[in-house]
Amino acid sequence: MATYPPAIARLLDALTHLPGVGPKTAERYIFSLLRRSPAQLHELSQSIEHLRDKIVVCSRCHTFDEQNPCRYCSDRSRDQSTICVVTDAPDVLAIEHTGVYKGLYHVLGGTVSAMEGRGPDQLFIKDLITRVSAEQVSEIILAMNPDIEGETTTLYLKKALEGLTVKVTQLARGIPTGGDVTYVDEATLGEAIAHRQAA
Amino acid sequence: MATYPPAIARLLDALTHLPGVGPKTAERYIFSLLRRSPAQLHELSQSIEHLRDKIVVCSRCHTFDEQNPCRYCSDRSRDQSTICVVTDAPDVLAIEHTGVYKGLYHVLGGTVSAMEGRGPDQLFIKDLITRVSAEQVSEIILAMNPDIEGETTTLYLKKALEGLTVKVTQLARGIPTGGDVTYVDEATLGEAIAHRQAA
Repeated sequence: MATYPPAIARLLDALTHLPGVGPKTAERYIFSLLRRSPAQLHELSQSIEHLRDKIVVCSRCHTFDEQNPCRYCSDRSRDQSTICVVTDAPDVLAIEHTGVYKGLYHVLGGTVSAMEGRGPDQLFIKDLITRVSAEQVSEIILAMNPDIEGETTTLYLKKALEGLTVKVTQLARGIPTGGDVTYVDEATLGEAIAHRQAA
Repeated sequence: MATYPPAIARLLDALTHLPGVGPKTAERYIFSLLRRSPAQLHELSQSIEHLRDKIVVCSRCHTFDEQNPCRYCSDRSRDQSTICVVTDAPDVLAIEHTGVYKGLYHVLGGTVSAMEGRGPDQLFIKDLITRVSAEQVSEIILAMNPDIEGETTTLYLKKALEGLTVKVTQLARGIPTGGDVTYVDEATLGEAIAHRQAA
């Protein structure tokens, strides 16, 4: 069997830890890297070092940023009375991309998952309860994924927030933009009918 | 619109230069990287530096390795009389993976391409002719891809090697292992009939 030169084998191993990257893709990346200039390779490795050195987790909402508190928590022009609760930091970026939301965030750091043995204590749920009590929060938007783990987490949070005087909402379910009534799955269509909106 | 923290934007830019990696995939890689330990990130960046510092191009056959001449050129147990000509260095690895070939290699560094304005002079073709004349070569195996550019390159090489006393062969065409006679494309099936082998 052919073996890679050690320098290639080492990078191959590091790259296959990326999501969805198998040995074939990693090999393709490496051969593309080998065609780049030494300066470009240096830039890539420095960008990774930079990421490691610069990115911090916000101690208040647990999103990633280069400052703590993060840009969202420290932006006083944002609506301080609304917290959008998301599963993971990438969800914050996805919501920011819409340009629709101007409140604060709270990253849970995962979902309650029986399968992976992850209980509510391993998520930043206590922090959230503390924030709701300590800050002037009037609305909590639950923005978990509409799957089993997301639903479980949503249910858990609804219960945990029950005693507090805060409005709890969740993302609307319905037919996605560009979707098709004929072909959309029945669960989605059912939700879209049940939660029909004024036209 | 949401903007990324600068450290993320910088790495995003570097990653989108990888083949097939768009902003969404790069973002996914970065968020996966952010979940790794500082030591793991350091290992990844060091592997890239290491690649840059260690990998050299063999001055004889132009494949990548950590030594020059490369492991294949310096392995005297390999058949010194056969040279397999490939388009690019990854092809060498692909052929090595089969375990079938024990000769030497010659990497052209691309194909003759009218589309991309790449002529024979930009490939390591002169080197090949020199090798055939200088070394005790009895067979040249042309292993270009069976596409237009590969065929053009094969034709060009066949002509360029014509005057030399060396046997020129090319990879067999036929139905791939696991293929289906009913569904294989007609060009392949045609080749498989024309070049039928003794059973």
